[in-house]
Amino acid sequence: MRRDAKESRIVMRVYDIIERKRDGVELGRDEIRALVEGFTSGRVADYEMAAWLMAACIRGLTRGETVALTDAMRASGGYVDLSGLPRPIVDKHSTGGVGDNTTLVVAPVVAATGLPVAKMSGRALGHTGGTLDKLEAIPGLRTDLTKEELQRQVQAIGLAITGQTADLAPADRAIYALRDATATVHSIGLIASSIMSKKLAVDADAIVLDVKVGRGAFMQRLADARDLAETMVAIGRAAGRRVGAVLSSMDQPLGRAVGNACEVAEALQVLEGEGPNDLRELCLELAARMVLLADGAADVESGKELAAQAIESGAARDKLLQMVEAQGGDVGALVDVARLPRSRFEVTLRAPRDGIVQRVDALVTGRAAVAAGAGRSGKDGMIDHGAGIALCRKVGEAVAAGEPLAVIRASDEKRARAAHELLASAYCIGPEAASPRPLVVEAFDT
Amino acid sequence: MRRDAKESRIVMRVYDIIERKRDGVELGRDEIRALVEGFTSGRVADYEMAAWLMAACIRGLTRGETVALTDAMRASGGYVDLSGLPRPIVDKHSTGGVGDNTTLVVAPVVAATGLPVAKMSGRALGHTGGTLDKLEAIPGLRTDLTKEELQRQVQAIGLAITGQTADLAPADRAIYALRDATATVHSIGLIASSIMSKKLAVDADAIVLDVKVGRGAFMQRLADARDLAETMVAIGRAAGRRVGAVLSSMDQPLGRAVGNACEVAEALQVLEGEGPNDLRELCLELAARMVLLADGAADVESGKELAAQAIESGAARDKLLQMVEAQGGDVGALVDVARLPRSRFEVTLRAPRDGIVQRVDALVTGRAAVAAGAGRSGKDGMIDHGAGIALCRKVGEAVAAGEPLAVIRASDEKRARAAHELLASAYCIGPEAASPRPLVVEAFDT
Repeated sequence: MRRDAKESRIVMRVYDIIERKRDGVELGRDEIRALVEGFTSGRVADYEMAAWLMAACIRGLTRGETVALTDAMRASGGYVDLSGLPRPIVDKHSTGGVGDNTTLVVAPVVAATGLPVAKMSGRALGHTGGTLDKLEAIPGLRTDLTKEELQRQVQAIGLAITGQTADLAPADRAIYALRDATATVHSIGLIASSIMSKKLAVDADAIVLDVKVGRGAFMQRLADARDLAETMVAIGRAAGRRVGAVLSSMDQPLGRAVGNACEVAEALQVLEGEGPNDLRELCLELAARMVLLADGAADVESGKELAAQAIESGAARDKLLQMVEAQGGDVGALVDVARLPRSRFEVTLRAPRDGIVQRVDALVTGRAAVAAGAGRSGKDGMIDHGAGIALCRKVGEAVAAGEPLAVIRASDEKRARAAHELLASAYCIGPEAASPRPLVVEAFDT
Repeated sequence: MRRDAKESRIVMRVYDIIERKRDGVELGRDEIRALVEGFTSGRVADYEMAAWLMAACIRGLTRGETVALTDAMRASGGYVDLSGLPRPIVDKHSTGGVGDNTTLVVAPVVAATGLPVAKMSGRALGHTGGTLDKLEAIPGLRTDLTKEELQRQVQAIGLAITGQTADLAPADRAIYALRDATATVHSIGLIASSIMSKKLAVDADAIVLDVKVGRGAFMQRLADARDLAETMVAIGRAAGRRVGAVLSSMDQPLGRAVGNACEVAEALQVLEGEGPNDLRELCLELAARMVLLADGAADVESGKELAAQAIESGAARDKLLQMVEAQGGDVGALVDVARLPRSRFEVTLRAPRDGIVQRVDALVTGRAAVAAGAGRSGKDGMIDHGAGIALCRKVGEAVAAGEPLAVIRASDEKRARAAHELLASAYCIGPEAASPRPLVVEAFDT
């Protein structure tokens, strides 16, 4: 009897919580916690949570609700305790883009300035790439460090990039799967709390968020990207962290490589003082803001100088090599990148006419890379680490008819052709001069 | 492979349907049919339907969507074919109230005027009563007629009142259960399509809807009740039926009996030319509109005269007795109502002061009747047919301190006391003159 009474009280409560959100009423911290805990424990059914998520998606979540939801999802799982390490510890997060290998540059650069970096990264999702998949293009490299291994490695060399442990914010994982099935992904509050519930489960002092905006980003409109950035910053600050954010353009892919092994090679180029200018520029910006947040520099400009020095001195490249070695990877494949995976079939996309590149649609390019094998097309799709796209021309660059626009690599001709067909539609060539919008669109200072 | 492709097409489609409703886009007839058919067959999951229902609840449904939803739910099950019977066949429906035993009067009255009445009724829900439960207070009476029995009985005596067969609109039953769990009951479009999907599964030509409004009704606000009535009328007409609607007040209980056996006895009083004025007035109004819709009268007034004659002549009472006999019930219990069930414990609620009754809250009175045993309190709660409330005073009537306001009957003292406590809070006595709002608030002519 007692149990029935208790269960019926919980059921009643969930009904009320759904009803109140349906009517646009702001929920209390305890209500949101009860909902998330109930869902995690199985007392709240999928269909109840789905109804609540749709109400939250349409009515929106207040800042307070978003903070409470993040906290409840974070509290559903473990915590990566980094006590005992030198402070402050810094972290970064990108909302996901195409050709976005900044973590592979920024993390070693910041670590080389003397700030410990403990980063948990994710995998490719849809048309966007994932740092873990890129790292796994390095033969032997482990991305499944335990919490203890992570802690020891950061203690030893000041840098680790690994996958999220399974016990991190399990409520977020379960809720995300439901959102994905019920058209409730597109909500600023739900997106922000999902990202931050995982970030806040790691004991870092400062977090820099790289919020992508544009065609290849999750947020295509600037106002939405700004809203997402502000919401995440507010969540992080409510949890007592130092948080900064940069809005960066994802209209066209970042850098000139889209794939896994090819993006590792490109990151190495930047760490060697070369590589594409846009990628280098964004890496310096993000690294500078991480250093700034950790009180390691007086302003963004001197932060950039510190970062640039870490590159010029070779310290940042050495740091990456140390990390690869610590995580069991083949360091030789970074010294001689020809040893990285490289798919056999190569197809070149050529310019159909003379002109200036007006557009390289990042979304379509990302899809082309997935078609080539660089992403996951099915639920448990395998990644071909050697597949990818090298962009020979980007927005504003001139090209003559018949010259290469891009080179595609894939494991078979069919995949290469499919990618070629998609990529052809990503390019737009016209007679006018063209220039992309500034790469760093906005920045939120601390 | 083909099957996978087909399934994934359906899944994609459901996602789109949820997404479009989330964004307030009007769905097409085929989309709504695909959703309902998918849910009935199990291809659409509970959580997908729950998300859609919440979106529909918040965004609303257009008239076209409501008609399509009704049709899809109706088409999910069987159809009560009454071909071969004299036409037109008439039906009525009440949205549910307290002390609402009009069907027990109206159906035999209309049948006595020569129009066949084939009615499928429901059970008590929450604080509202149900015609089937009331009929089952008559010993032996069956409410589980098969379609064939229903048809034969209407052929033979022109009247049958029975429960819905299990195959009637099963999609509505499944969707209602989900709405009940996800706070998506309160949507005019969803309510209207739920009611009409069952009404339209019966082959009647004309339907009169009694939409209750006020404290004890599902719709407490007049604007909502009007919207519901208009929506149901539109759905019925889109399906080619003649439909009329009356908005009637449910601020205080209808008549003076609230329960099951006691409401049967009260209905008999009205059929014998006696009984409470308000109950008689509403019964004549509804009967007149049914006769009018079936072209059996030139206007509402002459319809009322026909109905009154059917009562005065005793034809309507005889028709009810014929029906009870045909359905296996103990006719003797209607001739001598002392043979109807009657619970042992009696408690009288007395006026705490002199004055005029300002209010008899129908919702609270309904809950008091449930507490006495006349309704279902748990999911599979049993009904005590002999429990109930007799109202000695209604709104506008004078009472002296200590005089009875109501008499409660229950099977044990605990239940009687619980009902007494609730009922005390339903009454409000004050010094001012008071009068209820008109019983028939509005009517929608055909």
